[in-house]
Amino acid sequence: MEFRQMTYLVPICGVAALVFAWLRSAWVIKQEAGNEKMAEIAQHISEGAMAFLRREYRVLAIFVIVAASLLSWANSGNPASSALIGVSLVAGAFCSALAGYFGMKIATKANVRTAAAARKGLNPALHIAFSGGSVMGFCVVGLGTLGLSGLFLVYTRLFDSGAAQADLLRAVTVLTGFSFGASAIALFARVGGGIYTKAADIGADLVGKLEAGIPEDDPRNPAVIADNVGDNVGDVAGMGADLFESYVGSIVGSLVLGVSATTLAGESYTPALVVLPLVLAGAGVLVSLAATFLVRTGEGGNPAHALDRGTFGAAGVMLVVVWFLAHRILEGTYVIAGTEFDATGVFFATVAGLAGGVAIGLITQYYTSEAKKPAQQIAKDSLTGAATNIISGLATGMRSTALPVVVLVAAIVVADQQAGLYGIAIAALGMLSTTGIQLAVDAYGPIADNAGGIAQMSALGAEVRARTDKLDAVGNTTAAIGKGFAIGSAALTALALFAAFRATVGLEVIDLANARVMGGLFIGAMLPFLFSSMAMRAVGRAAFKMIEEVRRQFREIPGLMEGTGQADYAKCVDISTQAAIREMVAPGLMAVIVPVVVGFYDTAALGGLLAGVTSSGVLMAIFMSNAGGAWDNAKKFIEAGAHGGKGSDAHKASVVGDTVGDPFKDTAGPSLNILIKLMSVVALVIAPLLV
Amino acid sequence: MEFRQMTYLVPICGVAALVFAWLRSAWVIKQEAGNEKMAEIAQHISEGAMAFLRREYRVLAIFVIVAASLLSWANSGNPASSALIGVSLVAGAFCSALAGYFGMKIATKANVRTAAAARKGLNPALHIAFSGGSVMGFCVVGLGTLGLSGLFLVYTRLFDSGAAQADLLRAVTVLTGFSFGASAIALFARVGGGIYTKAADIGADLVGKLEAGIPEDDPRNPAVIADNVGDNVGDVAGMGADLFESYVGSIVGSLVLGVSATTLAGESYTPALVVLPLVLAGAGVLVSLAATFLVRTGEGGNPAHALDRGTFGAAGVMLVVVWFLAHRILEGTYVIAGTEFDATGVFFATVAGLAGGVAIGLITQYYTSEAKKPAQQIAKDSLTGAATNIISGLATGMRSTALPVVVLVAAIVVADQQAGLYGIAIAALGMLSTTGIQLAVDAYGPIADNAGGIAQMSALGAEVRARTDKLDAVGNTTAAIGKGFAIGSAALTALALFAAFRATVGLEVIDLANARVMGGLFIGAMLPFLFSSMAMRAVGRAAFKMIEEVRRQFREIPGLMEGTGQADYAKCVDISTQAAIREMVAPGLMAVIVPVVVGFYDTAALGGLLAGVTSSGVLMAIFMSNAGGAWDNAKKFIEAGAHGGKGSDAHKASVVGDTVGDPFKDTAGPSLNILIKLMSVVALVIAPLLV
Repeated sequence: MEFRQMTYLVPICGVAALVFAWLRSAWVIKQEAGNEKMAEIAQHISEGAMAFLRREYRVLAIFVIVAASLLSWANSGNPASSALIGVSLVAGAFCSALAGYFGMKIATKANVRTAAAARKGLNPALHIAFSGGSVMGFCVVGLGTLGLSGLFLVYTRLFDSGAAQADLLRAVTVLTGFSFGASAIALFARVGGGIYTKAADIGADLVGKLEAGIPEDDPRNPAVIADNVGDNVGDVAGMGADLFESYVGSIVGSLVLGVSATTLAGESYTPALVVLPLVLAGAGVLVSLAATFLVRTGEGGNPAHALDRGTFGAAGVMLVVVWFLAHRILEGTYVIAGTEFDATGVFFATVAGLAGGVAIGLITQYYTSEAKKPAQQIAKDSLTGAATNIISGLATGMRSTALPVVVLVAAIVVADQQAGLYGIAIAALGMLSTTGIQLAVDAYGPIADNAGGIAQMSALGAEVRARTDKLDAVGNTTAAIGKGFAIGSAALTALALFAAFRATVGLEVIDLANARVMGGLFIGAMLPFLFSSMAMRAVGRAAFKMIEEVRRQFREIPGLMEGTGQADYAKCVDISTQAAIREMVAPGLMAVIVPVVVGFYDTAALGGLLAGVTSSGVLMAIFMSNAGGAWDNAKKFIEAGAHGGKGSDAHKASVVGDTVGDPFKDTAGPSLNILIKLMSVVALVIAPLLV
Repeated sequence: MEFRQMTYLVPICGVAALVFAWLRSAWVIKQEAGNEKMAEIAQHISEGAMAFLRREYRVLAIFVIVAASLLSWANSGNPASSALIGVSLVAGAFCSALAGYFGMKIATKANVRTAAAARKGLNPALHIAFSGGSVMGFCVVGLGTLGLSGLFLVYTRLFDSGAAQADLLRAVTVLTGFSFGASAIALFARVGGGIYTKAADIGADLVGKLEAGIPEDDPRNPAVIADNVGDNVGDVAGMGADLFESYVGSIVGSLVLGVSATTLAGESYTPALVVLPLVLAGAGVLVSLAATFLVRTGEGGNPAHALDRGTFGAAGVMLVVVWFLAHRILEGTYVIAGTEFDATGVFFATVAGLAGGVAIGLITQYYTSEAKKPAQQIAKDSLTGAATNIISGLATGMRSTALPVVVLVAAIVVADQQAGLYGIAIAALGMLSTTGIQLAVDAYGPIADNAGGIAQMSALGAEVRARTDKLDAVGNTTAAIGKGFAIGSAALTALALFAAFRATVGLEVIDLANARVMGGLFIGAMLPFLFSSMAMRAVGRAAFKMIEEVRRQFREIPGLMEGTGQADYAKCVDISTQAAIREMVAPGLMAVIVPVVVGFYDTAALGGLLAGVTSSGVLMAIFMSNAGGAWDNAKKFIEAGAHGGKGSDAHKASVVGDTVGDPFKDTAGPSLNILIKLMSVVALVIAPLLV
């Protein structure tokens, strides 16, 4: 069939993304890097970030090799799978790690160049910061599509026994390892990165700002470099690995479900449903790429509008592309688990996913923006002290779960009605098809944030700082939408992987009337609580060590406060690095081991576990992310002059909320996105062993 | 069959409990009520409490009448049900309200008499406080068994068409209304009571203790009476209605499941399984009654041991009674949803329930006790400020969900293995069969707390206050175990009612692969977050009004601080009352309406909703209750001298945590227990309309 040749175009799209990323990075590197002082600070940040990444990857390499060997061993000789699944795992982990490495390398070069450009004006600075973010974005989608489609083409050639359907199923099953590799890297990167960034942040704030009374990003603060490294480690590499996982997971989920569907005539060989997700992913790369050229703004323009034009433009074009490709590739009516669907159904499932993602993003923005009522109410409740600030923030976070869940459920029900389980996977894929530009916008944020830090530390003056602050503020708004997207896509991806798991393991029903399923549901629902607790306590322990060290330096280094002594930045970087690496292991292993243990005990109980962890995980993620965001912006609202402004009692109360919110929104919350996907993918990967 | 005549003994057990409660209350009233000042204060508290109850009941009466009329109308002419279901509803609500009325009436008399007796010694005081609590405990089980078994006997006589099985099923179906009535009262009482008590508490503390700098329970504090009323409204009437609901729900769940089981031979008329729950309830009343006589201690003895002897003694004896009765009443082997079981299986299901309840209680105690590591760690984390205190408390609360859930799942799986769905219901019933003494011990706590307040306000001197403090401390320990019990039994009861709903509506499977079920699960899991947020915001709003009023009185009443002016207690009582009544309506209605709407949309989605609300509700309840308890005791640990003691920075930080914990542990947390049961019972009640 002619359309199958389209599959060969997908790796080419991946290569195009990588070429684009390479061109962007060459351009960024060519830009002026500022004066000597700036270069020195940037050097510190870059070295710290890359050192962390290397140490993290060294630990992860061990995990990946062990997991890949076990999987290969368990699947060798299995006619439905192959020892090559271990190769998929290594490839997935490698692609994710490579994307993180490149993205962070360029991000830590773009930050100082953004600061340097901010001396000239807002737009040159915006352009560099966004270009830096684009490298992360297009490395992720480039390596994702290239890796997945490349392996797909190899496997479909290798597994050629003549039984087209079985061969395709086998190829896709072996491909699930790629998703597992991506998930494993993502979990450790998010958890490790989250611990790193918040330990440094809390350490820098509590001792530097509160005890020593020096401003944010002051070079006298020994933890200041670690704090800036943390932004890259958590928000660039961590976010990149997160979206890489979602991206790959949604494609793999669609592939598995595509194989398991049949045609209306009962013919079970339906390659069109397998080709479609790959082609959609490839098309999404090109659309995203084109959309980056929409991110331009004239002098005096609003950078936020430029960024919005990019993401919303890409989403709009993508809808048209989906309509066209679905009708071009799909031929007639298909059936999955009793639901009939056709190209139009697939299109509307995609619309449900995309609309749901945008809606959740906007709701997230409402609950966290300093211009909206919820954050302002928290600011007002700070007038009666820290306790009422905390209660108000927690209540806001809890309340903010309601609408996103309703939207999510609507998207699920519509997608299912339109195209069954395949529709849910395609909805997730639709939401994630423009990951390239979405992630570029997300990664732009921490680059702008870093640029502000460098401007401050190199004493570039108020005007420059004002420009970087403006870029940073824009980044915060887009970040809120990006976070909503990340949660929504994580939920849909987890459900798609869950459905794929059921299809693979042949579980016709997962019956809540079964006590083991109910037991699995309870255990699953509990895990996000336990996991969040572990992450928060890890931050607490790491921050405590950081506080001790910063206090020690202020005490022991002569002339540090006066500016004549030199802070030992490396020591603080080292503390965050060590703590993050050590503390990420326990929660990470728990996430991998629990589904395996439960799965071998009882397959249906594993189904319950996944449902529990997904529902409770999504809720806890929304609750914690939004509470943290709202506290943050309540503080900013007060700092902008409300309720007495900086230094008032209300401000002190709001600082307490902001500090509590840090591990909520930057460590535990985002890690939960990964937890739910990882558990589903683990179930999917071990599924052939459970049959 | 001879054993069916045992059913007639059950109402007699109920009457025995009521007679015992009457004797105890007569004895309490006869005790010395102290001096004039004490009597006056007690009068204030009693009047405030009864006024609240009357106003609350007036609002609830409207709800009950409307709900009963609707249910009667919808079921009239339904051959599987009857318009009498409305009568059941009214009866259930009436019994719950009556138990709350009597219990609170005596509790507000026992408090001042306990204070008076504390002038003589510890043991007379313990005796009065416990006797006061017993009135609540035995009113609940007395009215519960009497009401249920009385209606059961009436209905089985009324519905006599000759088709034994169908008639019995109909009688039991109509009886579910009783459970709904109990649940409705419980929800409003818990939510309303929780809002009342915390608004008063926060108002009294923030303005009195922190701003005006006067001690706890100082008569100059205008909110002090409202605060003491709150203890009765929340912890006596609220807790009583909560356990009344669980108690009745577990019996009704067992009855419905008992009817739906068959004998091994396929004979579907198995009245023994219906008789057993009623007889167990009756026997539990007598065992509890006997166990109250174990609560005695010689001079110098430890009151805690006396109370433990009562509850654990009752549980131990009950096990023997269950073994005997199960083997006496059940004849051979039964089948429910494919699981075969006999008397021994029923016995072990009960053991699983009881052991699970005790284990959850002990785990709760570990995570909240000031003598154990978690609370002490929070105290230590208060050294670095309020933010780390809050993070530590939240992390502790989240972590504390893990073991209770594992225990709960073990109890569910064992009970199901031993006796199928019937086993889960019987496990809940086993846990709750000794509610009489359990609740007596629970209600003892707030009476002792009130006695301390009265002693302080009437300036009875340090020695007396030390004795009441000791009684109060014992109450706090037993309360922790009681809370764990309440959560565990709520979860099991909800699952039993859920199973009963499925049996009634004829849902063979509730399949998580169905998108609507999954959607229901997500919505259900979200509701506890939304509900908690509503409850916490309600407390915030009410507390804000209270703070304003207390500040106004300090400002405007001349000589108040000097002790020459008189505080206007009634005004504060009125604010709490109005706020509680107004604020309880929205969350209460949401809990009733959502399952109805979802149920009429799709029955399977309602199944998913119940699973979601139960799993997420149990987790949030444990999280919030334990975080609150741990914060409270971390503060007490510091006040006892650790980390600088009272007035230190660590103490100030710990006060923030304690204040945040108040709505967690006393409003939102306990209300969730009811939410999960209420939603299940609503589903069960509307089930005949959905078939």
